[in-house]
Amino acid sequence: MKILIPNTIDLPVTADVETVVYDIDAAIPAEHRDAGVLVVWHNSSAWLQDAARALPKLRLVQALASGADAVLSAGFGDEVRICSGRSLHDGPVAEHALALILSAVRRLDRLHDAQRDHRWDDDFNDAQSAPDTQRSYTLAGARVTIWGFGSIASTLAPFLTALGADVQGIARTAGTRSGYPVHADADASAILAKTDVLVSILPATAETTDLFDAEVFGALKPGAAFVNVGRGATVDEGALIDALASGRLRAAAIDVTESEPLPASDPLWDAPNLLITPHIAGNRPVGAAQLVDQNVTRLAAGDDLVNQVHP
Amino acid sequence: MKILIPNTIDLPVTADVETVVYDIDAAIPAEHRDAGVLVVWHNSSAWLQDAARALPKLRLVQALASGADAVLSAGFGDEVRICSGRSLHDGPVAEHALALILSAVRRLDRLHDAQRDHRWDDDFNDAQSAPDTQRSYTLAGARVTIWGFGSIASTLAPFLTALGADVQGIARTAGTRSGYPVHADADASAILAKTDVLVSILPATAETTDLFDAEVFGALKPGAAFVNVGRGATVDEGALIDALASGRLRAAAIDVTESEPLPASDPLWDAPNLLITPHIAGNRPVGAAQLVDQNVTRLAAGDDLVNQVHP
Repeated sequence: MKILIPNTIDLPVTADVETVVYDIDAAIPAEHRDAGVLVVWHNSSAWLQDAARALPKLRLVQALASGADAVLSAGFGDEVRICSGRSLHDGPVAEHALALILSAVRRLDRLHDAQRDHRWDDDFNDAQSAPDTQRSYTLAGARVTIWGFGSIASTLAPFLTALGADVQGIARTAGTRSGYPVHADADASAILAKTDVLVSILPATAETTDLFDAEVFGALKPGAAFVNVGRGATVDEGALIDALASGRLRAAAIDVTESEPLPASDPLWDAPNLLITPHIAGNRPVGAAQLVDQNVTRLAAGDDLVNQVHP
Repeated sequence: MKILIPNTIDLPVTADVETVVYDIDAAIPAEHRDAGVLVVWHNSSAWLQDAARALPKLRLVQALASGADAVLSAGFGDEVRICSGRSLHDGPVAEHALALILSAVRRLDRLHDAQRDHRWDDDFNDAQSAPDTQRSYTLAGARVTIWGFGSIASTLAPFLTALGADVQGIARTAGTRSGYPVHADADASAILAKTDVLVSILPATAETTDLFDAEVFGALKPGAAFVNVGRGATVDEGALIDALASGRLRAAAIDVTESEPLPASDPLWDAPNLLITPHIAGNRPVGAAQLVDQNVTRLAAGDDLVNQVHP
């Protein structure tokens, strides 16, 4: 079977198949339109719509993004199975979440600003070691709450525990997940009042739109930090700016915004004690070649595929 | 026994003793000069010299810093045992090292600069996901070398391993420590040539002065990152600036400088792709109360003390 691999990723597939690397910005060459498997990563919607018409022998589209929305709406027929890259991003997103949490707790943003002013921040040093700031400047002993407790949270939480944090989750339903206590969102207020660091890994849905609003920020322990590696639509950004400006939130670090790219005129850029990264948490699938190998082998054997989302 | 506790730390001692909190900026009140134990944290050298004369019944000085140099040179007699706070700082320093490593790898400094310019850094996004930058923008698959492999490295390394990094050490003698391969410094060149992230946790000694010089930075894999949570004196700062300016080093993050506080006129402040934090890694001893409890109990029982450095 012939597999088309995009030029946007280095994918050392080991399955016993013919692999052809293609340019995601060009039409698929005529001699490769007999491919049975198409791997896609960073392809445009227009390109995908063309591909849906150009590959008559196609049996599988393997997306590497966690959501395969663009592929699903490109017009592939029911004879083509579509699989997502869900799970390839748990590690990278957890790594970025850890980077943003540590930056917010240890205030790398503020210290970098001091650096730009050629200023050794002695005030920070004093505040960090003061008796009453325990749990604010280190994760050791801090209470961290992760809102949205799926596979990324399960990957992230053990790092926080190992750093000495007391970790719990909030989700639609209460229970224990991966060994961590998860509370129902109806009980959020009591949890937030004791939270030093709030981490959102929520998807954008009708229910989560503007979930992080003035009420939630006001319910948090004063001086808590907020980190968002979920989706920007879950945050009322005006309320976030207000909470940072008033000092209600000590710091925030976000990888996602409501509009992406964030317009140059947006007031969010200048909110105090905020670090913004340009949606880079999950920009590198991990284990993609293994997933392709696995699904190609399963396809040949007639087995169920991993992460199949269509038909 | 009466224990004097400094007002610079919240120390919930549980041993069956009388505790008195004192102000490190004032003389010890006359009624407390009968104390048997003195805990010190952030005390000045002059204050320590006064204390060495003022406390005739003193039997133990418990320092909470990892080095007890200032206490050792204050003039306490041989009837006073001095213990350091070595090991109280492994967790905090490892946490800060992890923060700086993740910042250097995920370039939080550069992204914060882009934020100041109201710029969504699409170039970063493209470079991060390009096939040839694997091991540069994530720790998954990256080779991390820790130079100076003591208790802090043993605390730090498992976090890096769990994030997918391939971790090894360099030290004076080769061997396996905490399960990690450690190479002798004579073999450093071959290791450096394959290193994506170099982390220094070296102390300042005659042997380590300016150890990180143009030769070491030149031996590193081009585009490697450098992180220093050891001591500033180990780095030739001119060579560091040159390596950053030339792009030989992709990024660096340092918590220590040769002169501290770093003078406002120092060119290091403006070196490109560098994050400087003001020596805040180990600013919060963890487990200090337990150490005091332990040593007070041992003192009363006539047992050997933990971390004793004098007489």
